[in-house]
Amino acid sequence: MIQPKHSFNDYGDEYPNSRKVYVVGSREDVRVPMREIRLSDTERVDGETVENESVRVYDTSGPATDSQVELKLEEGLPRLRENWIEEREDTEWMLARGYQPGDDGKGQDAKRIPFGAVDKQVRVARADANVTQMHYARQGVITPEMEYIAIRENMGRAEAAGQVYCKSEHQSGLLQQAQTAAMRHAHHQHPGQAFGANIPVFITPEFVREEVAAGRAIIPANINHPEAEPMIIGRNFRVKINANIGNSAVSSSIGEEVEKVQWATLWGADTIMDLSTGENIHDTREWNIRNCPVPVGTVPIYQALQKVGDRPEDLTWELFRDTLIEQAEQGVDYFTIHAGVLLRFVPMTAQRVCGIVSRGGSIMAKWCVAHHKESFLYDHFDEICAICKRYDVSLSLGDGMRPGAVADANDEAQLGELETLGELTKRAWEQDVQVMIEGPGHVPLQAIKENMEWELDVCHEAPFYTLGPLTTDVAPGYDHITSGIGAANIGWYGCAMLCYVTPKEHLGLPNKEDVKEGVITYKIAAHAADLAKGFPGTQVRDNALSKARFEFRWEDQFNLALDPVRARAFHDATLPSEEAKTAHFCSMCGPKFCSMRISEDVRQYAAAHGFSAEEALEKGMAEKSQEFVDQEGELYS
Amino acid sequence: MIQPKHSFNDYGDEYPNSRKVYVVGSREDVRVPMREIRLSDTERVDGETVENESVRVYDTSGPATDSQVELKLEEGLPRLRENWIEEREDTEWMLARGYQPGDDGKGQDAKRIPFGAVDKQVRVARADANVTQMHYARQGVITPEMEYIAIRENMGRAEAAGQVYCKSEHQSGLLQQAQTAAMRHAHHQHPGQAFGANIPVFITPEFVREEVAAGRAIIPANINHPEAEPMIIGRNFRVKINANIGNSAVSSSIGEEVEKVQWATLWGADTIMDLSTGENIHDTREWNIRNCPVPVGTVPIYQALQKVGDRPEDLTWELFRDTLIEQAEQGVDYFTIHAGVLLRFVPMTAQRVCGIVSRGGSIMAKWCVAHHKESFLYDHFDEICAICKRYDVSLSLGDGMRPGAVADANDEAQLGELETLGELTKRAWEQDVQVMIEGPGHVPLQAIKENMEWELDVCHEAPFYTLGPLTTDVAPGYDHITSGIGAANIGWYGCAMLCYVTPKEHLGLPNKEDVKEGVITYKIAAHAADLAKGFPGTQVRDNALSKARFEFRWEDQFNLALDPVRARAFHDATLPSEEAKTAHFCSMCGPKFCSMRISEDVRQYAAAHGFSAEEALEKGMAEKSQEFVDQEGELYS
Repeated sequence: MIQPKHSFNDYGDEYPNSRKVYVVGSREDVRVPMREIRLSDTERVDGETVENESVRVYDTSGPATDSQVELKLEEGLPRLRENWIEEREDTEWMLARGYQPGDDGKGQDAKRIPFGAVDKQVRVARADANVTQMHYARQGVITPEMEYIAIRENMGRAEAAGQVYCKSEHQSGLLQQAQTAAMRHAHHQHPGQAFGANIPVFITPEFVREEVAAGRAIIPANINHPEAEPMIIGRNFRVKINANIGNSAVSSSIGEEVEKVQWATLWGADTIMDLSTGENIHDTREWNIRNCPVPVGTVPIYQALQKVGDRPEDLTWELFRDTLIEQAEQGVDYFTIHAGVLLRFVPMTAQRVCGIVSRGGSIMAKWCVAHHKESFLYDHFDEICAICKRYDVSLSLGDGMRPGAVADANDEAQLGELETLGELTKRAWEQDVQVMIEGPGHVPLQAIKENMEWELDVCHEAPFYTLGPLTTDVAPGYDHITSGIGAANIGWYGCAMLCYVTPKEHLGLPNKEDVKEGVITYKIAAHAADLAKGFPGTQVRDNALSKARFEFRWEDQFNLALDPVRARAFHDATLPSEEAKTAHFCSMCGPKFCSMRISEDVRQYAAAHGFSAEEALEKGMAEKSQEFVDQEGELYS
Repeated sequence: MIQPKHSFNDYGDEYPNSRKVYVVGSREDVRVPMREIRLSDTERVDGETVENESVRVYDTSGPATDSQVELKLEEGLPRLRENWIEEREDTEWMLARGYQPGDDGKGQDAKRIPFGAVDKQVRVARADANVTQMHYARQGVITPEMEYIAIRENMGRAEAAGQVYCKSEHQSGLLQQAQTAAMRHAHHQHPGQAFGANIPVFITPEFVREEVAAGRAIIPANINHPEAEPMIIGRNFRVKINANIGNSAVSSSIGEEVEKVQWATLWGADTIMDLSTGENIHDTREWNIRNCPVPVGTVPIYQALQKVGDRPEDLTWELFRDTLIEQAEQGVDYFTIHAGVLLRFVPMTAQRVCGIVSRGGSIMAKWCVAHHKESFLYDHFDEICAICKRYDVSLSLGDGMRPGAVADANDEAQLGELETLGELTKRAWEQDVQVMIEGPGHVPLQAIKENMEWELDVCHEAPFYTLGPLTTDVAPGYDHITSGIGAANIGWYGCAMLCYVTPKEHLGLPNKEDVKEGVITYKIAAHAADLAKGFPGTQVRDNALSKARFEFRWEDQFNLALDPVRARAFHDATLPSEEAKTAHFCSMCGPKFCSMRISEDVRQYAAAHGFSAEEALEKGMAEKSQEFVDQEGELYS
């Protein structure tokens, strides 16, 4: 089912020797993209060459890396899900609310850079219809989105569409090895920590449906963002990562933001949050969504605040409601809503080292204090859900009380809010609205597991979506690392999505390189977590890369890396010549002695003499040893 | 006991506003250096300024950052421990073996750059004397080294020397808070994971002695490296980090290596391993040791191999023995010895994805296979110990079978060798030789704890010293991060020292920036582990930095960071002006709205009205809320 026209340079310099393949599902328009990395052959000492299977990896970059598709930013991406939505016959077209004067804040209207036509049509659920993936799931319907996701999660395995429907015994040797190792670690050796115990060997569309129906996973898929490739967020699936982008009052333009979207998804961002707080909020979001192949999240209160001149106390339910509709029509896939910030939690933060650090949380805290009542988000929560179900906007219940210092971790404010988010989860589920729960923040290493367990407990297993957490406060400039440590751990314990932190966190706005550094760091954390959970097939890439390393297939090692560009550049910094990339040594030990080559020598010697290395030693053939010494020159040839 | 002459720029541009202080112990020559970071005052809204206590941090940089000391590389550092060693009257001076033709490999003698005089005198134990810190500890002797270490581990607390001898109730508010939080997490909330349960509130010299006597900690302190400032490696102390330096066959000069020593210790390396395999091995090591304020480790088999023209099978016990004496005389503080590589383990690696990746391990494996017998390291282990006890060289029992791919983690080869290392530990302890155990390598996240537990079990609680471990193989170019994740975890579980991994791992030789990146990443991992273990006082720095952040004391935030240079540079990349560093906002939200300022508003409002924020809300004073709204302009002043 692979499109034969694709060549092995679809991805250009960033991912050499990669081509885009599609695995087609039960219908022709369920075409799931994967990046296939072609490997060179292993050249054995006996002269035989052995082929190395290509490795397929999860691909978030969308049609931009499809050399068969011509894209124009001003036209947006192809509308992949259009037909699926149409076929369900539960939506209708209507004239969009579109841009209204003041949407970007007072006095900003003249600065617009609109995307597309002025009078836009948007989709909305027909009267009384509920168009959420959770609603379908609970009706027993397997949507094309769910099938797409099943194929996608099985990445690199079960190529024929039929196989995703049942557990298959067909596995390659490398895969089998990977699974064995994963099982051994996750199940045999660590029975008490088998956080991935409920993950099946193959993800089926029915399993996807069940998880969504139970609320353990969400598929953020606004009917007005048909460009997005379906993906799932839940702890029995691959751990996902989010990249925040967005302009701010001090920096950035629309062009830069769209570039960041493409850049972040090229390196592996599973969702994007547009956190713009500067000029052109409405249009920036529109350009981003139209060109974004992954779900887009926002924090609508940011725009609402801008509409009232940055005075939180002037916010109203009506204005907020209108902002939700504005954004839902544009295709935002999930809203962060800080509805759990209750009046009684606010004073609990007064003695904290860092008070309230969530921007949305502090806005709502200020509103609550100023009006001395519960926020309109809490009071109108059911109405918020009613909007969400008309567009299938998922809710990401924000943690306004998240700790901003390790000293503040797991305190009563944080836990109190989390319990409230649990109540709200149930209310959202009453309307079949998909929910995930946002989490901290700054949490020391030993308190992370407890955080995850609390969340599963009080939020009824709704997926957890955390920022880091940062495991120490002492390293500004390196907070991708302080938080990458926490992220890997919480992902292992069951966190479904990890919001990246860039090296600029706490200090400044990330540039393109920072975005990449943040994304790669979080790909590492997510991959480490998938390995630890024993997610089937994860280790295939590790094994292929290690095998390439052991065999001195340098180019394969680079190409299998999360960042081939940097891997190659670092190698070339010490040994720049082309010959060095085929040399059977590296700069650590130099050409004369190499530990990996010795291992290979042991293996080859045994093989050349028709017995295994084990036998060679066990049989105690001392004379063979001498032979081994004598052949030294030859073995080093 | 602070030297008053020091100013607040002892450390120059790398650590602004820092001065070197010494805490003096029970005798005047026990002077323990610390870096004291001066903070600015907090300016409250009511006009009052509140002083912020300076923060003291562990200082590994040695006399190079003491503005009162003039140093010349060709003279080496002051010989801090000379008197202590002399006073024990168990050593004598003798003419050093020194450099012998062929020590740097064949044909290398002409290239020498000797340090100091030709006919050098070195110290050696008197006949039948045992000069190890473990020996003294087991005799019930508290050495000056042990007292020094106790003061050092209590860093920033218990300033007067008397206090380190007993548990003290005297604690600053911030410290008390830090301890409370640490205890709460480590003991109350996670009783099953209190890996730091045996750490006392204050480290006393007697506690140091007990831990060394029991073999749970080591003090690497060769009598011929009196320049080194005493430090301890054990799981009931602060987690330490090691930085590898050393030239290789393809790169580097003596000058560069000494510069790397200074650079690595400036950023926080607790020990240095000189892994040179290129030219001038002997002299490079001499220059490094004479100028190194922290213990220096080596892998003597590397030099031995060079002496026999890189042919492992030509190695002999006699040549190796001579190399140990050569290096012990120079002052090497710990030897990595791969004595656990037994013949029967070698074939166990044949089916691995990455075979044997330890350089020392593969040398010994090749020797064993070539000669078809157990290695001379294993057979002559007691003689090795006999050498060590004459100089107090600690043993770092090398893991020649460590996994080089996650697929190979925790396999029978690794475990088999670990058990052998446990046997050897007991044999070393019979001679009161200090021992630590080296560990992997590549280990997926969920298998790390088991590794640590195995080590404690089969190696009788000897300190564990691990390379990473790397939690995935897929990110060459970012292996400081893949391994930093594993390092933080294993440090939390009880690993005593973490060997850094630089971004160049697997790809090339680290340059100065890579060394720094590796060191800082591992300082993060060690600090996160210390927090998680609940090591008393660790959180003081986190709290001080977070408080500075919350109060927009930007300069303090930078100066408290592990890397002030980068923190400042990242801030300036977005907001370069000097004013921005006193501004009460940052580039994320811009000047108009700031979540941290809102928290402060809530607090200030309550304080200004003579009641706490909690009361303000609980008493339900709605009229106060209106007042709050009315005062908006003022609060934002």
